[in-house]
Amino acid sequence: MQIVLKSYKKDFDYSYSFGAFPTYELLSARPSDAIAVIFGSQYHDDGGIERLCMENGIETQVNDKLLRRLSPKENCLVTGVFRKFSCDLSPDVPHIVLVNPSNMGNLGTIMRTMLGFSLHDLAIIGTGADILDPKSVRASMGAVFRIRHRHFGTIGEYVSRYGTHMLYPFMLDGAVPLDRADKAELFSLVFGNEAAGLPPEYAGIGQSVVIPNSTEVDSLNLSVAVGIAVYAFTKNRF
Amino acid sequence: MQIVLKSYKKDFDYSYSFGAFPTYELLSARPSDAIAVIFGSQYHDDGGIERLCMENGIETQVNDKLLRRLSPKENCLVTGVFRKFSCDLSPDVPHIVLVNPSNMGNLGTIMRTMLGFSLHDLAIIGTGADILDPKSVRASMGAVFRIRHRHFGTIGEYVSRYGTHMLYPFMLDGAVPLDRADKAELFSLVFGNEAAGLPPEYAGIGQSVVIPNSTEVDSLNLSVAVGIAVYAFTKNRF
Repeated sequence: MQIVLKSYKKDFDYSYSFGAFPTYELLSARPSDAIAVIFGSQYHDDGGIERLCMENGIETQVNDKLLRRLSPKENCLVTGVFRKFSCDLSPDVPHIVLVNPSNMGNLGTIMRTMLGFSLHDLAIIGTGADILDPKSVRASMGAVFRIRHRHFGTIGEYVSRYGTHMLYPFMLDGAVPLDRADKAELFSLVFGNEAAGLPPEYAGIGQSVVIPNSTEVDSLNLSVAVGIAVYAFTKNRF
Repeated sequence: MQIVLKSYKKDFDYSYSFGAFPTYELLSARPSDAIAVIFGSQYHDDGGIERLCMENGIETQVNDKLLRRLSPKENCLVTGVFRKFSCDLSPDVPHIVLVNPSNMGNLGTIMRTMLGFSLHDLAIIGTGADILDPKSVRASMGAVFRIRHRHFGTIGEYVSRYGTHMLYPFMLDGAVPLDRADKAELFSLVFGNEAAGLPPEYAGIGQSVVIPNSTEVDSLNLSVAVGIAVYAFTKNRF
């Protein structure tokens, strides 16, 4: 391998999948983006990772020291190295839209939830958590390799590209309770940042929706809110 | 203060609330369990924590070194110290029941979600994550101080005490889809461990329920599943 692998930073053009399951998902779903796989000497391959590397001509090495250096807290026995990627969203299926998400654990959980309800397209508006950071990859259990994601500078950019989607911004003061929202076939469910929610102007971009709840908490956890919304919008499909 | 404060261990009879918001919740909801509050020298009290300490006769001290030692990763400016507590669950309201939960982040998120839907009673069956561990307290944003929780050795112990609750074990092969479950007034929603789910024998203890989803993931994240279930069971109440 020519590149020297270092602890991940956001400006790298590659990233890591820590752990067997995310690495398996990388190799199954996006083998052409996989650069290498590093094994610990204690690793036992009962999941087919070595076979997938061989079939796809992906370099492997056994290197405990490198693994520890790349993932000091994770204590994992296998790590994939992959080229970062971006995707075109599919224009004729529903989307999830996250505006400035800040928590990589939530981002990972949301991607996994999307897969759980067969939603494969994620738009990220503005800056925010790095979707290909190893922490987000790991929290997604590799779901990040099975969905399409794309960044947009503003919601306007997104809307001008996917104008036929009906937008449903989720807001604490949304106009319609989730249960009674009309639920178009081609929907975009839009969620704000964990701390700040969506700015008020989002109320004007579609049908704003509220998840009715008690006043005992300020708001629901973002990944829980997305889970509830996705369940309600797709429940007649399963 | 007579006790010497150390990094938290499960066998302690006291624990910590790291951060201003969880500490405020401790002092508001369970002042009689609060032992002391430790401030960093940089702390600015705009939330009333100092006033609550004074009103309740709770010892305070400013001690940066102690704060760093107690919460090396959290970098927090205020920490409450509280006596661990257990509660009697209310017999005439719905319950959430978690069987061997293992992840403190999920446990915290679940408690916060419960409050969000005005559910205040949590039974924990078997061993599992420590609900009063500072990590769980922090993930709950202090919700742990506003709900009642109680441990039971087995589900049998729980059922013999709360026999009038209708049990709904959530299982991947549940008999009834969530949307069509009958939803008794007095319900207990029962969830298994993050990795293993509920053992098969739980199918016989009530009406087993499945959250219909795609086959693209093994299962939903536990706190997402609880959120969806709680939403569906309480949506006519808000």
